[in-house]
Amino acid sequence: MALPFVHETRRLIEWSACDPAGIVYYPRYAEMFDANTSALFEAATGLGKRALLARYDVVGWPMVESSTSFRTPATYGDEVVVASHVSRFGGSSIELRHRIAHVDGRVIAEAVDKRVWAGHAPDRPGGIGARPLPPDFIAAFSA
Amino acid sequence: MALPFVHETRRLIEWSACDPAGIVYYPRYAEMFDANTSALFEAATGLGKRALLARYDVVGWPMVESSTSFRTPATYGDEVVVASHVSRFGGSSIELRHRIAHVDGRVIAEAVDKRVWAGHAPDRPGGIGARPLPPDFIAAFSA
Amino acid sequence: MALPFVHETRRLIEWSACDPAGIVYYPRYAEMFDANTSALFEAATGLGKRALLARYDVVGWPMVESSTSFRTPATYGDEVVVASHVSRFGGSSIELRHRIAHVDGRVIAEAVDKRVWAGHAPDRPGGIGARPLPPDFIAAFSA
Amino acid sequence: MALPFVHETRRLIEWSACDPAGIVYYPRYAEMFDANTSALFEAATGLGKRALLARYDVVGWPMVESSTSFRTPATYGDEVVVASHVSRFGGSSIELRHRIAHVDGRVIAEAVDKRVWAGHAPDRPGGIGARPLPPDFIAAFSA
Repeated sequence: MALPFVHETRRLIEWSACDPAGIVYYPRYAEMFDANTSALFEAATGLGKRALLARYDVVGWPMVESSTSFRTPATYGDEVVVASHVSRFGGSSIELRHRIAHVDGRVIAEAVDKRVWAGHAPDRPGGIGARPLPPDFIAAFSA
Repeated sequence: MALPFVHETRRLIEWSACDPAGIVYYPRYAEMFDANTSALFEAATGLGKRALLARYDVVGWPMVESSTSFRTPATYGDEVVVASHVSRFGGSSIELRHRIAHVDGRVIAEAVDKRVWAGHAPDRPGGIGARPLPPDFIAAFSA
Repeated sequence: MALPFVHETRRLIEWSACDPAGIVYYPRYAEMFDANTSALFEAATGLGKRALLARYDVVGWPMVESSTSFRTPATYGDEVVVASHVSRFGGSSIELRHRIAHVDGRVIAEAVDKRVWAGHAPDRPGGIGARPLPPDFIAAFSA
Repeated sequence: MALPFVHETRRLIEWSACDPAGIVYYPRYAEMFDANTSALFEAATGLGKRALLARYDVVGWPMVESSTSFRTPATYGDEVVVASHVSRFGGSSIELRHRIAHVDGRVIAEAVDKRVWAGHAPDRPGGIGARPLPPDFIAAFSA
């Protein structure tokens, strides 16, 4: 059985991500996990988000459920590592797990996300609906 | 037994909160829940965040755990209502529940947050540590 | 000769808009001016941004030039007033002037923006091109 | 006479930086220029922002004037290059010039910023005041 396909990105915590307490404003971690989800998908499939949306004619993979534990603060100037992998594919859902840690290994935050593969729904602007996950998309993560 | 103290804020979804799919970029909901947490605390205590930090000599109430369910998309121009209340006070923790809904009642997202009452920790810049919740702060929510 | 149509919005500075220096992170002012531009257009025309885009079949009014002077800091909990008006209409351009001030009148920042009325350009995703300003749109500001 | 010390950073445009028109929401460029200002200062002095603030006992270098021209849109997945340099040092002011361009050279936006070297002012929370620029800080850019 294969180990999960994990994508790691090293990044610098910016001043703009921090709040008056001097630490990362916690919604910014969701942005970092979202960016690393796109990077993971590109690492697995060879296609960036724009190309994936065009190839599969979908609107994206919007978030359905997201849970995050915050362990240790981080601040501007900190070098961190974000690691993400798919922990489960459902019929049209994707479960992802993320961890962001200091380079010395101390965990900053961990998250579990459930997303849904979604196409345009005809009824309203911004309307979207679930679509079956393409088998070749799933297969790209077990190669 | 008292009903929970619920604080509701009506707001407009801005263009800046939306992504290329035309819907609210989901980390923006955490920002709306955070803003409504401050508004709830002010409604209960009569003190804004700056005054609360000064009065209790704390650095804030950083997030420890946060779980969100996303139900229905929202887009720019939508009028929404954010409702928040404290569902439990622990020794130094505060559990909050939030709901954001369209004005017609359709739920957009719901969240449960666990925060910790935190003071400055002397060891590092940005360092923080848990502190006991002040009894008069807690009492303000049951008045 | 008519006075300019000025739209004012009162708003609260949020914790999320502030940086580790404890003051508003300056790119957040551009977001406030952009939001008030949409509010000004709605006040003049009776149509929100979504309805304006649909009615005139345009992609928006992207920024071409923007200059801002920052005078006095603001911080979370401050009540501020954002005032915006159109200072000039060109063939396809719109010049706007914005001021954000504390409620006691102290100016926080002032900006001059030049935007262009833009439609979809067929050649690339995200591609846009200038379009002539609709006369009835312009007329709405002098009513 | 020395050429200006230019700092270049290559970065990927994220989905989170883009709006419903499918292009970068323009206030995000200010965030990119601000991040590259910190990177430029670190490249010149060897010190990150946290270390610079501590060494010179200042609160930062807040923006006083900023003007930006937007030339070509960018969208998520685009690789871009941000180039920044100091164009003038005043007594307590720093003028910076920035350019962001596609990797093929097409300019996306250019900006001129005037910042001020600022320390804590005793009178109010978030209060700041201008301070003389340290000679060794200036010297680091002409080395």
